[in-house]
Amino acid sequence: MPQRKSSPKRAAPTQLGRDVPWPQSPEEATLERVPNPHPDKLYLTRFTAPEFTSLCPVTGQPDFAHLVIDYVPRKWLVESKSLKLYLGSFRNHGAFHEDCTVGIGDRLVKFLTPHWLRIGGYWYPRGGIPIDVFWQTGQPPADIWIPDQGVPPYKGRG
Amino acid sequence: MPQRKSSPKRAAPTQLGRDVPWPQSPEEATLERVPNPHPDKLYLTRFTAPEFTSLCPVTGQPDFAHLVIDYVPRKWLVESKSLKLYLGSFRNHGAFHEDCTVGIGDRLVKFLTPHWLRIGGYWYPRGGIPIDVFWQTGQPPADIWIPDQGVPPYKGRG
Amino acid sequence: MPQRKSSPKRAAPTQLGRDVPWPQSPEEATLERVPNPHPDKLYLTRFTAPEFTSLCPVTGQPDFAHLVIDYVPRKWLVESKSLKLYLGSFRNHGAFHEDCTVGIGDRLVKFLTPHWLRIGGYWYPRGGIPIDVFWQTGQPPADIWIPDQGVPPYKGRG
Amino acid sequence: MPQRKSSPKRAAPTQLGRDVPWPQSPEEATLERVPNPHPDKLYLTRFTAPEFTSLCPVTGQPDFAHLVIDYVPRKWLVESKSLKLYLGSFRNHGAFHEDCTVGIGDRLVKFLTPHWLRIGGYWYPRGGIPIDVFWQTGQPPADIWIPDQGVPPYKGRG
Amino acid sequence: MPQRKSSPKRAAPTQLGRDVPWPQSPEEATLERVPNPHPDKLYLTRFTAPEFTSLCPVTGQPDFAHLVIDYVPRKWLVESKSLKLYLGSFRNHGAFHEDCTVGIGDRLVKFLTPHWLRIGGYWYPRGGIPIDVFWQTGQPPADIWIPDQGVPPYKGRG
Amino acid sequence: MPQRKSSPKRAAPTQLGRDVPWPQSPEEATLERVPNPHPDKLYLTRFTAPEFTSLCPVTGQPDFAHLVIDYVPRKWLVESKSLKLYLGSFRNHGAFHEDCTVGIGDRLVKFLTPHWLRIGGYWYPRGGIPIDVFWQTGQPPADIWIPDQGVPPYKGRG
Amino acid sequence: MPQRKSSPKRAAPTQLGRDVPWPQSPEEATLERVPNPHPDKLYLTRFTAPEFTSLCPVTGQPDFAHLVIDYVPRKWLVESKSLKLYLGSFRNHGAFHEDCTVGIGDRLVKFLTPHWLRIGGYWYPRGGIPIDVFWQTGQPPADIWIPDQGVPPYKGRG
Amino acid sequence: MPQRKSSPKRAAPTQLGRDVPWPQSPEEATLERVPNPHPDKLYLTRFTAPEFTSLCPVTGQPDFAHLVIDYVPRKWLVESKSLKLYLGSFRNHGAFHEDCTVGIGDRLVKFLTPHWLRIGGYWYPRGGIPIDVFWQTGQPPADIWIPDQGVPPYKGRG
Amino acid sequence: MPQRKSSPKRAAPTQLGRDVPWPQSPEEATLERVPNPHPDKLYLTRFTAPEFTSLCPVTGQPDFAHLVIDYVPRKWLVESKSLKLYLGSFRNHGAFHEDCTVGIGDRLVKFLTPHWLRIGGYWYPRGGIPIDVFWQTGQPPADIWIPDQGVPPYKGRG
Amino acid sequence: MPQRKSSPKRAAPTQLGRDVPWPQSPEEATLERVPNPHPDKLYLTRFTAPEFTSLCPVTGQPDFAHLVIDYVPRKWLVESKSLKLYLGSFRNHGAFHEDCTVGIGDRLVKFLTPHWLRIGGYWYPRGGIPIDVFWQTGQPPADIWIPDQGVPPYKGRG
Ligand SMILES: [Ca+2]
Ligand SMILES: [Ca+2]
Ligand SMILES: [Ca+2]
Ligand SMILES: [Ca+2]
Ligand SMILES: [Ca+2]
Ligand SMILES: [Ca+2]
Ligand SMILES: [Ca+2]
Ligand SMILES: [Ca+2]
Ligand SMILES: [Ca+2]
Ligand SMILES: [Ca+2]
Ligand SMILES: [Ca+2]
Ligand SMILES: [Ca+2]
Ligand SMILES: [Ca+2]
Ligand SMILES: [Ca+2]
Ligand SMILES: [Ca+2]
Ligand SMILES: [Ca+2]
Repeated sequence: MPQRKSSPKRAAPTQLGRDVPWPQSPEEATLERVPNPHPDKLYLTRFTAPEFTSLCPVTGQPDFAHLVIDYVPRKWLVESKSLKLYLGSFRNHGAFHEDCTVGIGDRLVKFLTPHWLRIGGYWYPRGGIPIDVFWQTGQPPADIWIPDQGVPPYKGRG
Repeated sequence: MPQRKSSPKRAAPTQLGRDVPWPQSPEEATLERVPNPHPDKLYLTRFTAPEFTSLCPVTGQPDFAHLVIDYVPRKWLVESKSLKLYLGSFRNHGAFHEDCTVGIGDRLVKFLTPHWLRIGGYWYPRGGIPIDVFWQTGQPPADIWIPDQGVPPYKGRG
Repeated sequence: MPQRKSSPKRAAPTQLGRDVPWPQSPEEATLERVPNPHPDKLYLTRFTAPEFTSLCPVTGQPDFAHLVIDYVPRKWLVESKSLKLYLGSFRNHGAFHEDCTVGIGDRLVKFLTPHWLRIGGYWYPRGGIPIDVFWQTGQPPADIWIPDQGVPPYKGRG
Repeated sequence: MPQRKSSPKRAAPTQLGRDVPWPQSPEEATLERVPNPHPDKLYLTRFTAPEFTSLCPVTGQPDFAHLVIDYVPRKWLVESKSLKLYLGSFRNHGAFHEDCTVGIGDRLVKFLTPHWLRIGGYWYPRGGIPIDVFWQTGQPPADIWIPDQGVPPYKGRG
Repeated sequence: MPQRKSSPKRAAPTQLGRDVPWPQSPEEATLERVPNPHPDKLYLTRFTAPEFTSLCPVTGQPDFAHLVIDYVPRKWLVESKSLKLYLGSFRNHGAFHEDCTVGIGDRLVKFLTPHWLRIGGYWYPRGGIPIDVFWQTGQPPADIWIPDQGVPPYKGRG
Repeated sequence: MPQRKSSPKRAAPTQLGRDVPWPQSPEEATLERVPNPHPDKLYLTRFTAPEFTSLCPVTGQPDFAHLVIDYVPRKWLVESKSLKLYLGSFRNHGAFHEDCTVGIGDRLVKFLTPHWLRIGGYWYPRGGIPIDVFWQTGQPPADIWIPDQGVPPYKGRG
Repeated sequence: MPQRKSSPKRAAPTQLGRDVPWPQSPEEATLERVPNPHPDKLYLTRFTAPEFTSLCPVTGQPDFAHLVIDYVPRKWLVESKSLKLYLGSFRNHGAFHEDCTVGIGDRLVKFLTPHWLRIGGYWYPRGGIPIDVFWQTGQPPADIWIPDQGVPPYKGRG
Repeated sequence: MPQRKSSPKRAAPTQLGRDVPWPQSPEEATLERVPNPHPDKLYLTRFTAPEFTSLCPVTGQPDFAHLVIDYVPRKWLVESKSLKLYLGSFRNHGAFHEDCTVGIGDRLVKFLTPHWLRIGGYWYPRGGIPIDVFWQTGQPPADIWIPDQGVPPYKGRG
Repeated sequence: MPQRKSSPKRAAPTQLGRDVPWPQSPEEATLERVPNPHPDKLYLTRFTAPEFTSLCPVTGQPDFAHLVIDYVPRKWLVESKSLKLYLGSFRNHGAFHEDCTVGIGDRLVKFLTPHWLRIGGYWYPRGGIPIDVFWQTGQPPADIWIPDQGVPPYKGRG
Repeated sequence: MPQRKSSPKRAAPTQLGRDVPWPQSPEEATLERVPNPHPDKLYLTRFTAPEFTSLCPVTGQPDFAHLVIDYVPRKWLVESKSLKLYLGSFRNHGAFHEDCTVGIGDRLVKFLTPHWLRIGGYWYPRGGIPIDVFWQTGQPPADIWIPDQGVPPYKGRG
């Protein structure tokens, strides 16, 4: 059995470690948060979600994206299983690329009130031309370290 | 049927979702715009267009380029199908590399009045020496996030 | 002035070294050939054409491809400027991906009667799904060396 | 207007060039086929589908895959829009990785009776360990050219 | 709820979908198997396990490896959660690189009696020199497709 | 025999050059330090540790990470064998990704009191979504050179 | 015939579109310039010249380099054919790496009086150690966009 | 303490786990071998040695190489520390590239009498032109698996 | 001073280790050879020459290529400095791509009478379309190992 | 014979163009310098040395590194053959990674008194963990251009 380290008391996540039905829309999804174990330090946490899919609001056809979310936690960390379920809830939801990307960032900001957050949405091409969307909440705090997201550019062929 | 999200009322695009003949010149092409769903946020939208081709104004021979357009919308987003048709309209149009690249950026700026825009034109080599053209409208707003366009340099062989 | 090497007498190409208007269709294009300087040796010549474009025969929209042609010359080499003009002549011509790729290979085979030929057509994605077409005239001669064409697979994003 | 090439008469596809609702299951999807324009030639056609998603049949959670399909047509080509709709129809369908991949290959074989077909399914990792599935209908015809699918191996991090 | 596809009756895995303590040694680990859904077809399944670690039998220091396992199932598929637990059971087990790699392959062969199996062990460097171990059960069946494992070679620096 | 350079007197490391049993927990591990040979110069030292593993504090399952530590030494360098043993001591220790990464950085800071330190933790994906953690002690000294850590982003497949 | 766009009147280049003998030394080469079509805009033009060769002034042996030139035009653009001829004129000219690279940049600055210019010379290794030379005319204007030249570092082998 | 697996009895290596002075020439180096733990199986072991250096026999200048050794053990495995010391013994030894590479392979063959062995020597460039040397003992046994060594080709610059 | 290994007596190269003026044409260049130190073994030697340049026989403009030469020596090795001088002698020599590549291979075959030889010529693009030329002397001996030359394909841009 | 350009008078290097025995220690090595041909311009010169090796001062075992040195010359350039000999002189010299890297930089600074200098030492891994050392003489002059050294991070395997 692993040696459990004593850690800050956490609000018990309600979805972690048990079977949870997939939420059918972003509205149905419940984000959860746990206390930041290092609230006295400014650090950046990055989630890479290469398995995002939603629907085009006009045609209903599937859209796909690779999302990268960076944030500097204040009091809370997002609980990662609840984030996975939230992102999965867009599966049958219709929204434009710009709306979707900025909207996810916005909901996380409201829920976590982090020091800073940014989201990059790297969408698969439609009509030969992919769209990328990049949003951040403003200038990052002066003392943090923010590596490039490093997603390679779209190339066509050859 | 997808679940349509309530979104800001949009000027109905006239070319989206129906058959549109390809415009025969940039002058014939009609750019269209839709309202920015997040006008209160500074974010960057990137279009990657690896399928650009025009003609050399002197010899009439085809030229090819990989274009990347970044902008920070104010009130408007460019409607992506109209952008595709506009870019396609250069197919039989003659213009120099520098003129073409900066000209496309300029027309988008006039049409969208974004907070900021830049365009990178990565042209296929002629005479063994490719030309790249990079233009932006000035210093970007202080709070936005602008990833590198990341197009690899030309290498010759080996 | 360079030191000109004595070489086999060549049928003088009619398009090389002078201004030639771009042919408006494959039918108008004139392929030319020059004598193989090493007809006693089995070797492979590869042309890489990353600047191919044609039109969709149904919708008229532009299609783009990266083409690679390998052949083992018998009596003739294709004159490279005439090949460039021939490939450029598809610019306003409508044909399906499979038809276009195999058709170009077929015309070269009829014109050059090489020992062997193959053509790879790597098309830019439509509807999120690119098509590649690979044709060869049969088993290559036993003694030749045929490196992989090495075009990287399509990847989507991320 | 593009210059339409005379081509073999085709069974008119019923879904191409018009709005088609997305099929809700593989059973509802209708594959369509068009005549092979070069039935006298052995060539390979490759479809790369980086936007595949299905559901785990046990937990209902989304699974993602990058699929590559190679075949040597006999009398028929698969119509590409119908293929896209068929692949999209797995979105809310539950099946195991091995079943899904081999099953798609099998249905195409029954529908197209090609000279040869293979399918590679490159699945996103679950539990830190991705699964790849590779199936072909047997030894390929001796005279065709079959490039490697070239999908890079999974790497973890670093 | 996903639409469950009717599938072959399976021996119910005893570890899937519930909390299982990590086995403390390979001997304690229980591999499980499920029926091959396509026993009439020769196809290859690949597991990539970039998270393997064991101990040096002489010094007790940790060793790390990236493992890739390919097999052609006959009647059985290995149940992937039980494979993950089995691989994880080497965490505190001491064995040499060659022994470990070939031994894992051997146990799977005895348990699954596949048509064919191979395992590649790509070990992290010790003393500046990494060891790779490659084993297969003999010549693969003639009709299957076996892509390269494609793990890049070790490079040192620069 | 090599020509030993005269160097600053060092506190003799107690673990270097002899057999040391692996510490069973971070608490048992003894970090050691040696005098900085260039205390008058601001330079950066980078350790890359691609062989890190710990346990999930909730489920006890193994977690893996690629760690990169950068610091600007003041009076002390960390002795590298003791660092290796310290990192290895997390093998059977349970802690969350954020806690683990920032905690290692914190302990080094307390032990070395460097001018500046940062740590990047690049964790292998769980649930399809990897987490990266980036922490630094604040703004780096103005005159130092800090190259990017250059770890490639997670990509999923394809 | 292409549709010629009306453009600013240009000083007719004397070498473009006709046969020009290769200049035998940099002194014999004639650079030419054409009016900047967008003199009101600050943009950057990049020339990549992977086919540069000169001679070692001491031993007479050939040297090779990959050159990248970036500049922000004021009134003039360099005419690209004349640039190609100028660079080719170093073929039998002897000069050191640093001299050659900075000298080319300097001549362009004097000829074009651009807002800003830089040149990167990436030389092939001699004695196992390649030299790169980087020069710019000073701080670039505040509002322009200057992508990295992105030439990969030299690596030796492995 | 790790759990030691019972393994075949080994000739105790005399250099492993203790301080050994570096041999000053290949003749002074002592290769050692241990019993093959799987003598009933045909498998391949690969050593990658990116840290090889020797001297030019004519000029005495240092030469560098990246070596990759593949072999199929019969009764013996080479003990890896003794191999490291043997390779290190070329440090002050003069020999040509071809001689060195083939000679190392030859000595291992005589010492281990493996089923099969090959060695690839990838030498750093001299005079702008690197040499690679590839030797194997003949056709490999029919049933083994031999992945490509995958060392990238030399590229010069750009 | 290095320890000189006793080696087979060599025909003393006349150009090695002293200043040699660059030959002004291939005819003036003197290839030299030294005895094969392992004439009893079939091994392959590869020369990579990324610094090749010649002139176009029609226009006199410079052409550039990356050449890779593989051969299996019989009695002789080519002395590498003489090879470098020979390749450098094409600098002011005019010949077509196919002629040049196959001609160099042919001269080496006549001079060395190797068991087998091949040459790959990877030429820089002209008119947007590069040419590669691949020649070998026939089927290689059955027992040798011939790695791929691995030169990446030409890509255009993006 | 090449056309020698008139250049600034140089202190005649004493080691260039003649046979020089390899110095046996850094103390024996003689660095040489030549006048900067462009003393009025601020430019950066980069040396990449992938062939560095020294000895561990404690165990005497060989260490390897890839070094990159950047400097902005004032009055002097380092003569490159003398630099090569100086770096080669560490072959049998014992020193720690940090000492070695910063020491080389320091000696060059004292010898050349450049405007600015930095050195990156990328060392091959020991104990699975490579060390990189980065030193610069302080803030670089405001007007120079300093590209990233771009050495890829260490990766382990997979
Ligand atoms: Ca869209
Ligand atoms: Ca391209
Ligand atoms: Ca041009
Ligand atoms: Ca090259
Ligand atoms: Ca199509
Ligand atoms: Ca992806
Ligand atoms: Ca599964
Ligand atoms: Ca890894
Ligand atoms: Ca070992
Ligand atoms: Ca290296
Ligand atoms: Ca976690
Ligand atoms: Ca993908
Ligand atoms: Ca190396
Ligand atoms: Ca190059
Ligand atoms: Ca040519
Ligand atoms: Ca050390």
